[in-house]
Amino acid sequence: MSAKKKIKYEEVSLKKIKEIGLKLLKKIEKGEGIYLEIPIRRLSNIVFDKENKKLILGEKIAKRYFLNVAHSKRFMQTLLVLSFCKTLLEEDERVSLREMFYSLKRTLPNSKENTFDEQRESDAALVDVELILDVIRERLNIGADPKGNVVGNIVIKDSLFGHEINLSKLGLGGWAIPSNVEHIEFKKVNADKVIVIEKNAAWERLNAHMFWKKWNAILIGTKGQAARGARRFIQRLNQELGLPVYVLTDADPYGWYIYSVIKYGSINLAHVSDRLGTPEAKFIGVSMTDIERYKLQNWTIKAKEFDLKRAKELMNYEWFKHPKWQKEIKKFLKTKRKAEIEALASKGLKFLSEKYLPQKLKEEDFLP
Amino acid sequence: MSAKKKIKYEEVSLKKIKEIGLKLLKKIEKGEGIYLEIPIRRLSNIVFDKENKKLILGEKIAKRYFLNVAHSKRFMQTLLVLSFCKTLLEEDERVSLREMFYSLKRTLPNSKENTFDEQRESDAALVDVELILDVIRERLNIGADPKGNVVGNIVIKDSLFGHEINLSKLGLGGWAIPSNVEHIEFKKVNADKVIVIEKNAAWERLNAHMFWKKWNAILIGTKGQAARGARRFIQRLNQELGLPVYVLTDADPYGWYIYSVIKYGSINLAHVSDRLGTPEAKFIGVSMTDIERYKLQNWTIKAKEFDLKRAKELMNYEWFKHPKWQKEIKKFLKTKRKAEIEALASKGLKFLSEKYLPQKLKEEDFLP
Repeated sequence: MSAKKKIKYEEVSLKKIKEIGLKLLKKIEKGEGIYLEIPIRRLSNIVFDKENKKLILGEKIAKRYFLNVAHSKRFMQTLLVLSFCKTLLEEDERVSLREMFYSLKRTLPNSKENTFDEQRESDAALVDVELILDVIRERLNIGADPKGNVVGNIVIKDSLFGHEINLSKLGLGGWAIPSNVEHIEFKKVNADKVIVIEKNAAWERLNAHMFWKKWNAILIGTKGQAARGARRFIQRLNQELGLPVYVLTDADPYGWYIYSVIKYGSINLAHVSDRLGTPEAKFIGVSMTDIERYKLQNWTIKAKEFDLKRAKELMNYEWFKHPKWQKEIKKFLKTKRKAEIEALASKGLKFLSEKYLPQKLKEEDFLP
Repeated sequence: MSAKKKIKYEEVSLKKIKEIGLKLLKKIEKGEGIYLEIPIRRLSNIVFDKENKKLILGEKIAKRYFLNVAHSKRFMQTLLVLSFCKTLLEEDERVSLREMFYSLKRTLPNSKENTFDEQRESDAALVDVELILDVIRERLNIGADPKGNVVGNIVIKDSLFGHEINLSKLGLGGWAIPSNVEHIEFKKVNADKVIVIEKNAAWERLNAHMFWKKWNAILIGTKGQAARGARRFIQRLNQELGLPVYVLTDADPYGWYIYSVIKYGSINLAHVSDRLGTPEAKFIGVSMTDIERYKLQNWTIKAKEFDLKRAKELMNYEWFKHPKWQKEIKKFLKTKRKAEIEALASKGLKFLSEKYLPQKLKEEDFLP
């Protein structure tokens, strides 16, 4: 890619980095001690904002001083990452966390000290940079692993390549959601909802049945836990286009957790969850009630100890305290049976696309 | 999809199933005992065909009798799967292995006996069906997990949807390779080689750098071990279009194994490896020699016991007995260091696309 065509978010991020740099420079020129201000991201500083239904960071801020022996290595690492991000944005390059680590790892001259010894150090420094700049890493051109597919009545534009991509003309495969979707623009949108599906096989068959066409839906397959690129894509469809989002997972604690992460993000990522979560998302199934309603009992699986433990933990999550979810989780703890999306295939291969989902959508039978 | 538009391979598979069914029916009508003839797929019947460089099954065949108590359950299961495949092909449906299991699992009337208790039983029955019909499961419309992306100067046609898809117009994401590519046709091909890449990040950056355009290559990202759909796609590009295939993996035993599976298939899948393997594939890197040549030593990782054990096993694989590979593996066992593709990022973010791969291609510096 040419280094000249810069995408708008790249300009904004670059400006923020330069501001930090200039501020430090001025302090140095004045002979003052330099430090970085970093919002604290420990659990003690993470708050569930009930009104906006988001996990957010509290007000606590830490100062990291260059001239404090306990801070100076981390200070250097943070600046190295800041500087690396500047280069990425200037040169319109994109890397993974692992590549950033390799790019920055070296031995300091005349010493045995490495800039970074392990990837978790550069990862942590990047989180600090995200906090300092108040920008997600994708807007610094550092992506997570790409995972997830999408089809539907929508034309997107990839502004990196200038390609217009019609997501209703991509056959059985669909478009592979990249690690970073910040440069994607939504052009023509004819869909009125988004359905997110945990399992590949269900996504693929819904695509083959052209469910997206009949039901005017954008179908996103997450292949298990949704990657950051997919979550951001879902969020943008919801927030920028106002499309409702419905999530279909297995009827088990892992499925609920996948839903939870799409909705609110994980606690680890509290500082970015407002950017990656879709609080308005609803759970379309498979619910514990569905198991009875659709007589799936013979196709359920015995829960493991691990599942039961997980379910009890989830019961205490703020957003699972809704009575409907409490009922759901209690039902699971009582029956100790879980069901996969694929269990719906026992009712026929067209059951999911022609009966189950249409009924759910018509009756608005969702969990909050 | 309409049940009327049938794809050619579906017709062929359907015909084979009907022939088996009719043969059994005739025997029953004559009052003869019925059985199925199934090629044996134990290691004792797996041969490495040196001339064609393929793992193939030997001549040994087992008979499975309906009226033998030890055989009859398995006989029933095999027929259930055969019959299920017939339905899939007739109705142009596509399922995963897991969905097939759910579709077929039920309790036999007036008994406590299930058709299938666990998925491994229906999986095994399907392998028998593949052997009986001499057809890969994809041609029975049963796919594995979809995984892998592709971009490049090629237009494909998805005959299930009738979509023509230009793989050079799909932005950063690319086309997601589906679980089944039997219905894909190659239309306009302007590429002259295929490069298969183990790691997402490297695939994505090569795409962003438009390496595929400059080097006239089709870029396939496998995201680790290549899924069946991706392997079949690679094989078809090689066999039907005559394109050479180069595989880029980490410099470690797991990377070599990924290469080995793309090239020859795994022993488990010997009966289909001739359909899913690409014996002509070459290894483009990262090689142990590259570590020295490109001074990557400081970015290598200490091998674990597990790696060393695996390397010793690989040394005995027929296709790693080539002197070049023996040298490569011995170098690893001596240095006990491995290197990831991402380590190339230590030489700059354009190193892979502008120096490493071009040099390898120009010098034809490949391992067999």
